[in-house]
Amino acid sequence: MDLPKPLALLIDSFSKLPGIGEKSATRLALNIVQWNSNERREFSNALELMDGLRNCNFCNVLSDEPVCQICSNEKRKSEKTICVIENINDLIAIEKSEQYYGNYFVLGGVLNPLLGVGPKELYLDKLESMVQEFGTRNLILAINPSVEGDATCSYIKELLSGQDVDIQRIGFGIPMGGSLEYVDSMTISKAFENRKQF
Amino acid sequence: MDLPKPLALLIDSFSKLPGIGEKSATRLALNIVQWNSNERREFSNALELMDGLRNCNFCNVLSDEPVCQICSNEKRKSEKTICVIENINDLIAIEKSEQYYGNYFVLGGVLNPLLGVGPKELYLDKLESMVQEFGTRNLILAINPSVEGDATCSYIKELLSGQDVDIQRIGFGIPMGGSLEYVDSMTISKAFENRKQF
Repeated sequence: MDLPKPLALLIDSFSKLPGIGEKSATRLALNIVQWNSNERREFSNALELMDGLRNCNFCNVLSDEPVCQICSNEKRKSEKTICVIENINDLIAIEKSEQYYGNYFVLGGVLNPLLGVGPKELYLDKLESMVQEFGTRNLILAINPSVEGDATCSYIKELLSGQDVDIQRIGFGIPMGGSLEYVDSMTISKAFENRKQF
Repeated sequence: MDLPKPLALLIDSFSKLPGIGEKSATRLALNIVQWNSNERREFSNALELMDGLRNCNFCNVLSDEPVCQICSNEKRKSEKTICVIENINDLIAIEKSEQYYGNYFVLGGVLNPLLGVGPKELYLDKLESMVQEFGTRNLILAINPSVEGDATCSYIKELLSGQDVDIQRIGFGIPMGGSLEYVDSMTISKAFENRKQF
């Protein structure tokens, strides 16, 4: 038998999401059947509203205004610090830790010439003009450790070498709750490299 | 920072789905950002269309018509067989196996007096009248094995005892690809009980 059309369409849409196969999509769509009309309307409205989202003119953070909440916050701006991150997931994680209160800049990835990701794709010119416009003094590179991540950091350092900006990269080592026994040797070597006076 | 409103609303909706926590919901909502407007519109339309889904007048299968595709199929009806199942997931699984080509009846659960699920909640009167209306000769109980499932089967047998219907229940035993070593002892005892001449 063919599934009723609304159900089949919904399963199609759910299947497009990452990590959701046909079986999970069916389970989710059948769960939606039990929602009330209001809940479904809220869901569909939220989807429609996504059309209004854009990247902030300065920092690329998703926003429903041309300039995002963070960039229009004068208190954050007065920190004169930009934290450079790969994507908005990282921003959410950092905000949750409550360890940082400045501006952000979302690259949208890391340099990867093989995949055609160059400085232009990461909006690095936008970063450069944001640093000038905001009078930034400190740049924190919160880019994940990888060959491409390291290259991206070096590129940014080079790019801003003419400006009076202190550039730092976040620390690498054993994560909290981690165990030397289970951590890879690359992390252990970074942890030894980054040891501090105790 | 507060997330942009459309994103926050979408995360809320995704979080309502079973097995999806706040983190997964965020990941899914951020994936939706990358969809194009058309794909998002299809998704939201499918959600709106769900309001039009109802239970088939005869068999309770979800349908966008008063009588579902299966019940209005004369060829299936001529089999004079109804397969009784707990929910529409089971129907999808059975249809996929292509082992059955008759009608269905969806109970929506099994008898469970402690949770207030009685014969009325399972629409058993609707089953009774469907059996009469369709001139059913065979009833296959494809209800999962459990104390409540067994009780439900017994109840249906009792209910239809006055009618000329042959009632069978699907077989239980070791699943294909299963291994005696890992299967529970209840299944092994069922498998021995259900042994057949070889």
